[in-house]
Amino acid sequence: MAESLELHPDRLLPADPGTRAIARELYATVADLPIVSPHGHTDPAWFATDANWTDATSLLLAPDHYLYRMLYSQGVALDALAIPSKAGAPATDPRAAWRLFASNYHLFRGTPSRMWLDHVFAEVFGMGVRLEVSTADQYFDAIGSALATDAFRPRALFDRFRIDFLATTEGAEDDLSPHHAIHRSGWAGRVVTTYRPDGVIDVEHEAFKPAMARFADLTGEDVYSWRGYLAAHRKRRADFRAAGATATDHGHPTAATANLSPDEAERLFATIVTGTWTPADAELFRAQMLTEMAAMSVEDGMVMQIHPGSCRNHNAGLFASHGRDKGADIPTRTDYVHALKPLLDRFGNERDLSIILFTLDESTYARELAPLAGHYPCLKLGPSWWFHDSPEGMRRFREMTTETAGFYNTVGFNDDTRAFLSIPARHDVARRIDCGFLARLVAEHRLADWEAAELAQELTSGLVRRAYKIDDHPPADAGKRETLAAKAA
Amino acid sequence: MAESLELHPDRLLPADPGTRAIARELYATVADLPIVSPHGHTDPAWFATDANWTDATSLLLAPDHYLYRMLYSQGVALDALAIPSKAGAPATDPRAAWRLFASNYHLFRGTPSRMWLDHVFAEVFGMGVRLEVSTADQYFDAIGSALATDAFRPRALFDRFRIDFLATTEGAEDDLSPHHAIHRSGWAGRVVTTYRPDGVIDVEHEAFKPAMARFADLTGEDVYSWRGYLAAHRKRRADFRAAGATATDHGHPTAATANLSPDEAERLFATIVTGTWTPADAELFRAQMLTEMAAMSVEDGMVMQIHPGSCRNHNAGLFASHGRDKGADIPTRTDYVHALKPLLDRFGNERDLSIILFTLDESTYARELAPLAGHYPCLKLGPSWWFHDSPEGMRRFREMTTETAGFYNTVGFNDDTRAFLSIPARHDVARRIDCGFLARLVAEHRLADWEAAELAQELTSGLVRRAYKIDDHPPADAGKRETLAAKAA
Amino acid sequence: MAESLELHPDRLLPADPGTRAIARELYATVADLPIVSPHGHTDPAWFATDANWTDATSLLLAPDHYLYRMLYSQGVALDALAIPSKAGAPATDPRAAWRLFASNYHLFRGTPSRMWLDHVFAEVFGMGVRLEVSTADQYFDAIGSALATDAFRPRALFDRFRIDFLATTEGAEDDLSPHHAIHRSGWAGRVVTTYRPDGVIDVEHEAFKPAMARFADLTGEDVYSWRGYLAAHRKRRADFRAAGATATDHGHPTAATANLSPDEAERLFATIVTGTWTPADAELFRAQMLTEMAAMSVEDGMVMQIHPGSCRNHNAGLFASHGRDKGADIPTRTDYVHALKPLLDRFGNERDLSIILFTLDESTYARELAPLAGHYPCLKLGPSWWFHDSPEGMRRFREMTTETAGFYNTVGFNDDTRAFLSIPARHDVARRIDCGFLARLVAEHRLADWEAAELAQELTSGLVRRAYKIDDHPPADAGKRETLAAKAA
Repeated sequence: MAESLELHPDRLLPADPGTRAIARELYATVADLPIVSPHGHTDPAWFATDANWTDATSLLLAPDHYLYRMLYSQGVALDALAIPSKAGAPATDPRAAWRLFASNYHLFRGTPSRMWLDHVFAEVFGMGVRLEVSTADQYFDAIGSALATDAFRPRALFDRFRIDFLATTEGAEDDLSPHHAIHRSGWAGRVVTTYRPDGVIDVEHEAFKPAMARFADLTGEDVYSWRGYLAAHRKRRADFRAAGATATDHGHPTAATANLSPDEAERLFATIVTGTWTPADAELFRAQMLTEMAAMSVEDGMVMQIHPGSCRNHNAGLFASHGRDKGADIPTRTDYVHALKPLLDRFGNERDLSIILFTLDESTYARELAPLAGHYPCLKLGPSWWFHDSPEGMRRFREMTTETAGFYNTVGFNDDTRAFLSIPARHDVARRIDCGFLARLVAEHRLADWEAAELAQELTSGLVRRAYKIDDHPPADAGKRETLAAKAA
Repeated sequence: MAESLELHPDRLLPADPGTRAIARELYATVADLPIVSPHGHTDPAWFATDANWTDATSLLLAPDHYLYRMLYSQGVALDALAIPSKAGAPATDPRAAWRLFASNYHLFRGTPSRMWLDHVFAEVFGMGVRLEVSTADQYFDAIGSALATDAFRPRALFDRFRIDFLATTEGAEDDLSPHHAIHRSGWAGRVVTTYRPDGVIDVEHEAFKPAMARFADLTGEDVYSWRGYLAAHRKRRADFRAAGATATDHGHPTAATANLSPDEAERLFATIVTGTWTPADAELFRAQMLTEMAAMSVEDGMVMQIHPGSCRNHNAGLFASHGRDKGADIPTRTDYVHALKPLLDRFGNERDLSIILFTLDESTYARELAPLAGHYPCLKLGPSWWFHDSPEGMRRFREMTTETAGFYNTVGFNDDTRAFLSIPARHDVARRIDCGFLARLVAEHRLADWEAAELAQELTSGLVRRAYKIDDHPPADAGKRETLAAKAA
Repeated sequence: MAESLELHPDRLLPADPGTRAIARELYATVADLPIVSPHGHTDPAWFATDANWTDATSLLLAPDHYLYRMLYSQGVALDALAIPSKAGAPATDPRAAWRLFASNYHLFRGTPSRMWLDHVFAEVFGMGVRLEVSTADQYFDAIGSALATDAFRPRALFDRFRIDFLATTEGAEDDLSPHHAIHRSGWAGRVVTTYRPDGVIDVEHEAFKPAMARFADLTGEDVYSWRGYLAAHRKRRADFRAAGATATDHGHPTAATANLSPDEAERLFATIVTGTWTPADAELFRAQMLTEMAAMSVEDGMVMQIHPGSCRNHNAGLFASHGRDKGADIPTRTDYVHALKPLLDRFGNERDLSIILFTLDESTYARELAPLAGHYPCLKLGPSWWFHDSPEGMRRFREMTTETAGFYNTVGFNDDTRAFLSIPARHDVARRIDCGFLARLVAEHRLADWEAAELAQELTSGLVRRAYKIDDHPPADAGKRETLAAKAA
């Protein structure tokens, strides 16, 4: 007989009874706050079409590289899990794939995927027994039936999840038609885009050429000249802002920035577009473009997010057979202190510029990121990211950043997910861990209880809303620049 | 009057009473399981000859560089501790050395050495008072008397410790005669060897030339030709397997691997054996040999262990006077992501290959190792190693690897020791810390109690037995290769 | 109505009631021990003149870059905080600056600055309400009134704080006149200097030339010849020892050391003083000078402190407008294993040499520093430093160093501060955290209670007094050298 599935109300709260009691009180004040999701990868077409999803495998398993990377590491073939390859989706029965997943569900013990999924199963689908091989069919049927109903269509779940703001991420070469469709539909849900121009900045990406062609088409600019290329970015940034974007996002191999003269930049760009570049040129161009993007953010007020340090597509064989984003991205050691200096030399003291830094290298939390964010007016710390978006990872983030950067140089939680149904689960984990951390500070008499309560609100709601300018009207003062150092000098 | 020595039954369990109660229950289920020691450095001659050890100093102090490194750091001369130098053993009275050690025993407060020794003193020798200067002679006498009895001979202690499997480590140039003697003796204890070919791979080792000569003698191959050299490795791997080995071990300065063409490899090898190599050649050859060893493991099924990142013999003066392994090895920053890629490009998707990775650089746990092991079918994570084989080190290992790699990409505990009498103590520490970690997950409602109980068994017994193929029969299907990516493609 | 300000007697002690009870007992035994402050940056002129300080802003806010870096990071202009720029002190009303600080005091929640300040407010000034915008004037007035009284003059506070030993830091080009004045005054307070020769070693420092000129004047040596330069160092070291110094201090960008031949060193020095050096020459010269300083410490018995790894003046604009030490120093990744080897090859086995290592890179604690200090007789570990001088930082220091280096290779606490009034607060935090750490070891049955009590004394008093030779008479045996390896060989 299957084990029952229950989400304990005290899950993730500290075990010490006194600390737990404080954490429980804090959590009660934020548990039901609306969700603000300023950085993620859900598909805007879901909200544009509001079409039903079909089954557990195609919704929950096949798109989630957190899940199949673990199964693959234990010898499970991707085909058997219905994961599409470059040849297309395999002819795998979705139910059989789900059973295979269920029979390996123990592999996820101790991982955040397990917590998120159990939350989805219990809270979204109302399952009362655990997922295991004996309940795989029961799950597959129940989830399939639910997904066929109106209550489980994307917009209905958006409302049920009490999502107040959801940002997706689109490339510079994207026409944003799903976002336009959402807007035209008159639906009240606030789903906005984010400007992620990596595809037209990273010449080492295999799709750089078609992305540039599309970038030219969409803007009517001569994107193969430096001047036209920059103008095209400005146009697309305006398009994205018109589709609700408040932020840009930049996923680079490193945090390198550069501060070339206009002539140097123009010459480098010519090398890039003529295809005569070296890997060092490609890196320098990405570095220069972070600084160019910062310059445009000073003009138009868009918040910059920098996500560096992932060695993408590490598994050569899997990349050849299955392409990108198949769970084979591996973090690397990342420097920020020297890497960001060229950009900061130019814009570090802008008080109206906001750059949110992320890392996959936790050794930089206390050593580099907290000291940088605890000094530069333009820098803020994004939450623990990707592999570190987990209870222990979040706890380490707070322990290693708070003493130097404080709470107010952080920006609340990002779910960073394409797994829409798990968004409430992920925000709930963050709220519980933050309340547990605050409760420890109270229990150790390092914060008063009322301060912790204020901070719980800030960490859940205030910081993210301000950092991502979610409640701002379009900045009337765009173009007005103010430098703290200038002011102080 | 001397303080009493008692091992508290709750030692190392979490202090929170609720969590401790859970940990205590979990620990009770694994405390008495047999010991599986798949990686260590005990002397097989002990079990071949079953001769009595003689005294506390020569058994417990003089061979243990964990102990005399600490004493040396505080100004105690090695001669006074009876530590042999290149000139041989000093003319130091063993009892006087033991007294000196006892008078400095406070230096070990807070270290694992202290815990292991107190366990040995209390459990193996039945001492009821603590080691201190006033009890030094009492200890020396009691230990000496015990060691003279049959009950303290190596095989008797092996049985008393309930050791089910013990792997030693021998070089490619070792004739394995103690292992053959153990086998011929008909003794039932399972003591096996491990193939560690560093001596004939690391041309920078001072004994490379004699090791190669011995390698040639033992195999009858022309080990100075690339083809003969590889054939000699194959022969010796077969010899080691015949002596029970299920694994190889590789202690390299870095984790670098290479994937040269056969011609490039042959040319490099010629440079190595003719002595015209540079340090970069030496490093490249070690790197290539890891890949060659992986190729042979795909053929013969031996598990590979990679132990990189120790800067050996850091103390030049001490190396000159005393030689290797005198407590002067210092860990260094270690990269895995780029270092392992050449090997993984070739064999990363082999589901029948098993490579166990170790590190001395804890910053790689969450950043590199857990993501690599949580994706590649051939990779597993070895336990916290050497300086990190300690309560805090083990706790950090679980906290930093579990959320990304899970429990099932780890391989249980390694004691990695030459201190035979401390083996039960070391396994006991690991079991207590793992049960404490599991108990916290239960207390925080992240695991069910029955899951934690299953995991406690796995962490103590199941994972190590499967990872090291301890219960396998010789693989009938050696040579059959299967690639997941090929299968999936 | 303002919230009350109370320092809870159990603050910073572990939340678990059993562990807290143990910690409380341990803390009671060390809470009132005299303060030994062997490394800091208070101004000796305060104790020479014993003049009254004037107001809260100029005493507590304007000199404290921990405070204004955080305010600056949140968009507060330095001028508005009365922070001096290169143009001098801004025309900012101190009371207005204090109000601005008070209105942003919430930014410091969770930081050590907040704890230190609340301690100063409550304990030194007797404030009963919290600092906030509504109490800013009350604070400003109360602090100003107190500072005008005799009881708040520097020597009175020195006595009230029960400071037994206080080391300041002066450059090689400093004439030590305040220290001489203190000595002449007959005041019993033990305020000594520390020899910090960076200004005449770091040719990249903007004031290298005037410092060298002053160095020449003070010593009468030809400091532009290698022989004269070394002789000048020897003279000044003797001057500093005469002013009570027991230690030197070296703040270098990296931990690099070198071991050049005398001829090579002389040629390098010629390059440095003729101004034809490259950045690599500057680094090599700093590296060589650490080894030269070690050689002199072997002669004269002064303890060496090495503080590497800060990227100074990272904010180019702020450096241009405001100069050094304005909160824009950012830690960088730091290597010790290879960096220190040249010095250690020469002096590593000297048992009369003492080098205290500090780091801003916590990833080196367990990987490099604890193994180095746990082996080399000349190395000790300084406490957690600067950004890591905080509850979580201290806890991580103990957790990551103790198991390999033990407690006895550490040197107690350094407050490292120019904020004189916060010295008792800082030592109190260290004592509480250390007692909490020891209490956990007792609660987990890893130490006996009486051992923890001994260690609490050592961590508070014994280790620092011995490491910094505070109770030593001038070494009669200076010049006598003894090498452990030589002895052992």
